[in-house]
Amino acid sequence: MPESGQPEENSKLRIVVVGGVAGGASAAARARRCNAQAEITILEKGPVVSFANCGLPYHIGGEIVERSKLLVATPELFWDRFRVRVRTGHEVTTINRSAKTVSGVTSAGEEFKVPYDRLILATGSEPIRPAFCDVSADNVFPLWTLDDMDRILGTMKKHPCKRATVIGGGYVGLEVVEQLKHRGIDVTLIERLEQVLTPLDPEMAKLIELEMRQAGVKVMLGAEVESLLTGRNRVVTAVKLTDNQTVPTDLVIVSVGVRPRTALAQAAGLEIGASGGVKINAYCQTSDPGIFAAGDIVEYHHGMLDRPLRVPLAGPANRSGRIAGASAAVGASKPLASVQGTSVVRVFGLSAGGTGLNSRMAREAQIDFRSAIVQAPHHASYFPGAKNLTLKILYRPDNGQLLGAQAVGGEGVDKRLDVAATVLHFSGTVHDLAGLDLAYAPPFGSAKDPIHMAAFVAENDIARLPELVGYDAELEGLQVVDVRSAGELEKLPLLGAIHIPVDELSERWSELDSSLPTVTVCHSGKRAHIAACLLRGHGFEQVRNLNGGMSIRRLKE
Amino acid sequence: MPESGQPEENSKLRIVVVGGVAGGASAAARARRCNAQAEITILEKGPVVSFANCGLPYHIGGEIVERSKLLVATPELFWDRFRVRVRTGHEVTTINRSAKTVSGVTSAGEEFKVPYDRLILATGSEPIRPAFCDVSADNVFPLWTLDDMDRILGTMKKHPCKRATVIGGGYVGLEVVEQLKHRGIDVTLIERLEQVLTPLDPEMAKLIELEMRQAGVKVMLGAEVESLLTGRNRVVTAVKLTDNQTVPTDLVIVSVGVRPRTALAQAAGLEIGASGGVKINAYCQTSDPGIFAAGDIVEYHHGMLDRPLRVPLAGPANRSGRIAGASAAVGASKPLASVQGTSVVRVFGLSAGGTGLNSRMAREAQIDFRSAIVQAPHHASYFPGAKNLTLKILYRPDNGQLLGAQAVGGEGVDKRLDVAATVLHFSGTVHDLAGLDLAYAPPFGSAKDPIHMAAFVAENDIARLPELVGYDAELEGLQVVDVRSAGELEKLPLLGAIHIPVDELSERWSELDSSLPTVTVCHSGKRAHIAACLLRGHGFEQVRNLNGGMSIRRLKE
Repeated sequence: MPESGQPEENSKLRIVVVGGVAGGASAAARARRCNAQAEITILEKGPVVSFANCGLPYHIGGEIVERSKLLVATPELFWDRFRVRVRTGHEVTTINRSAKTVSGVTSAGEEFKVPYDRLILATGSEPIRPAFCDVSADNVFPLWTLDDMDRILGTMKKHPCKRATVIGGGYVGLEVVEQLKHRGIDVTLIERLEQVLTPLDPEMAKLIELEMRQAGVKVMLGAEVESLLTGRNRVVTAVKLTDNQTVPTDLVIVSVGVRPRTALAQAAGLEIGASGGVKINAYCQTSDPGIFAAGDIVEYHHGMLDRPLRVPLAGPANRSGRIAGASAAVGASKPLASVQGTSVVRVFGLSAGGTGLNSRMAREAQIDFRSAIVQAPHHASYFPGAKNLTLKILYRPDNGQLLGAQAVGGEGVDKRLDVAATVLHFSGTVHDLAGLDLAYAPPFGSAKDPIHMAAFVAENDIARLPELVGYDAELEGLQVVDVRSAGELEKLPLLGAIHIPVDELSERWSELDSSLPTVTVCHSGKRAHIAACLLRGHGFEQVRNLNGGMSIRRLKE
Repeated sequence: MPESGQPEENSKLRIVVVGGVAGGASAAARARRCNAQAEITILEKGPVVSFANCGLPYHIGGEIVERSKLLVATPELFWDRFRVRVRTGHEVTTINRSAKTVSGVTSAGEEFKVPYDRLILATGSEPIRPAFCDVSADNVFPLWTLDDMDRILGTMKKHPCKRATVIGGGYVGLEVVEQLKHRGIDVTLIERLEQVLTPLDPEMAKLIELEMRQAGVKVMLGAEVESLLTGRNRVVTAVKLTDNQTVPTDLVIVSVGVRPRTALAQAAGLEIGASGGVKINAYCQTSDPGIFAAGDIVEYHHGMLDRPLRVPLAGPANRSGRIAGASAAVGASKPLASVQGTSVVRVFGLSAGGTGLNSRMAREAQIDFRSAIVQAPHHASYFPGAKNLTLKILYRPDNGQLLGAQAVGGEGVDKRLDVAATVLHFSGTVHDLAGLDLAYAPPFGSAKDPIHMAAFVAENDIARLPELVGYDAELEGLQVVDVRSAGELEKLPLLGAIHIPVDELSERWSELDSSLPTVTVCHSGKRAHIAACLLRGHGFEQVRNLNGGMSIRRLKE
């Protein structure tokens, strides 16, 4: 597809968009901007278009007070402003590619058929409903649509809800946990895996788990739901786990992931990729040149894995929608950039997120990687309000290429993720990270930002100046030198270590055996690095320092 | 200089660092990490090392309560932790390059001479003292050192200070204005130029000027100081301007910029660059291979201008110090990355900053550029607490290369600057900006972040889809179509415009003359873009939309 800003001379092109939420709404609005003459129609299965899916948990918790705020655009606005005709309650069930029509049935039960010249599919995704899920129960819900939200709020209004159970510890699950707690409800989170937030490595996710526990949430990990126990009137009263534990509850929110609504595309014979999403080129064109697709149903090119991957997030959905709209309207667009799967969530007083590869993804892709973890205040430590930020970066040991970043902290998490995502966009290295000229003033960061600090640690690790040892490494049999202060040791002991405070090490290093494999340890890794450098200079050939220090090691299972 | 992590076998290398603040302190600590055996000495003219220069204004205002917080490291810490000997009160006056010694005089008046194998110069910068400045006055101060700060606080304690005057509207000047106001003092800001914050374009700086005025600061622009009027006891009682106005005052802070303390390097015959800074290579090596330099005295490679430039900021100072330290200690380091001059400041409820080129710099460098300005909430508009963010980007019209970015807003300014600075680091384009996979959740941003929105506007402008017209353009003689609502017009009228609300334009465009050069206008530029697209589709060949809309045009002088 040529890159060109010039519209085709196709004055009455009929563009039909199936699905009117994030990707579809973006596509329609962009198509109109690029082509003033086209007839543009959105067919939306549900009762509304373009609602703020990501805001739903916050209205449940009352943080977003007015429901109307969630309605981003109305059919009237689409018509008045864009001359885009919106037909809600129109579920498309068939695409006839040779006749170039879509047909289906309305919520009122009427059949319809609409012709198109260009079709844009943006059917989105739907929540996965596990086998145990009783669809007929009155108090068990997913949270994916406005309707889901309304039903949850309706139920909570009808029956006093003292105890709620959230099944699934992903992004949406944690937002719901936070918001239900915000309403004063006792919340239990049930997660099948041994950690919440799988986009993060276990130790990073642990920080969020601890934050939830501190907020009074009951977090159950490695907990598999067997069934929902139903009392009278189709109301679930408890969640039963496979280990026979039961969790009494007044409300169950099931949030175990989403799957792409590709049935329509699939039935039409459009190519589906290996990841299960609709295959598109960089211009959001499917295997049928007249059909475009955007949002959760497609697979994007993942920049770090260099292969297609589904990423059901709002950012890529909106950006791909915009490109699908331009491509469909004028046959021209800038290409869609690779995604890094960047995501972030707020959970009580902390925020957490990641971009690019985490350790599991890198291992699965058989990419050789190392990682550096730093703990640092989010802005100048001497400026009031500095909050702790934990930043982990993954990189290739051979060329220093950045592979991914994860961050957890009270402030500034999103900023560091965005910087890392931008470096990933350019396939940059930890040396690039180390040299970035970031905005510094005491209320915003540090002259050496946590981003720089993480990069410095990675550079040292790569150059073996000295090398890092994993935060969860077996230390048994190593000469472990704990360089923290006596007060720190008392609060968080490290058994079996030799204690020499960093500021005494220049005097006392000879107390250690330079022939032994040695690991230096402090709270965050900073002083341990200084100590390791010092010991190395004194002939300790096999000295390494503990990645992230005790602040991370304490999170080891 | 080879890139290698291996230290030379130079076990008792003598490294002398002249200057122990940002760059010097970083250099010494890094040198020690790289070389455990070297003898490292810091010679510091002043009474302290490694203090938090950037924190000084905040202790004056009381936001940083304890003075001790500003003392980043003590001579004792340098010795205990790094075996770096710190000699304060040691002003180096001569470098003898053939003998490899530095000599000078202590604050006690004693002469000293110290030999070196490698020398690191980090003498920093000093405040410019204008001709009108009465150095003998009791209540006129720069604010650059701890001593300056102590004297200011001492004076304020001695004499009740009701009215203060800050001369110079740069970053430090504005921080001082904010902090003095914070103490309940009546503050007048006097700036020689017609705008504050010259790193920003005038309309962006105007937002900060308005914020200060709203906070009750008297802002005098284009105001040249003629003299300070001294009353009894060497106390200045008023500032007299060249237009004969006088500003009564109890305190004067002079903050009109800094100059590099290069006299020592210059006297030693080290090469000084065209920008007036010590010339260094990418490893912070000066024209003498045994002498390194870092911080405010050097000139950095500016990535966007592609030439050396002085950038007296803490970030580059710390990073160059680190590289100078490694280079001096082991003859090896990663190269110093280019700087973009990224900077940021908080001024009452707003933050403001820039990275890369502003319009003036681009014009002076004769770089062809265009710009896009957007106003957008800093996070999802439907999520409580969304604050307005104004973002301006500069780019090449030929290839879309990003040249610079500026941002002003209540939250999230630093994040957008950091993302832009990272794109600049990689010489990226507005298309890169548009495709970035940034971290989105309602509390942090928008699925289409202000960064994306600015990039979209720039892409449209470049592709003439349609083109932008400057926010301050002469609209006389053009067909101006104001597509705002009637309520908006009432609050902020635009005379001479034809009023057709955007949502009526599809019906009413035929009221306009399609043969005339036309400009569409709304509040922020978003609806005007939609309107311009629509008119263009209806045969208006010469339609453009007003960059930034009325929200920016109102800032026009």
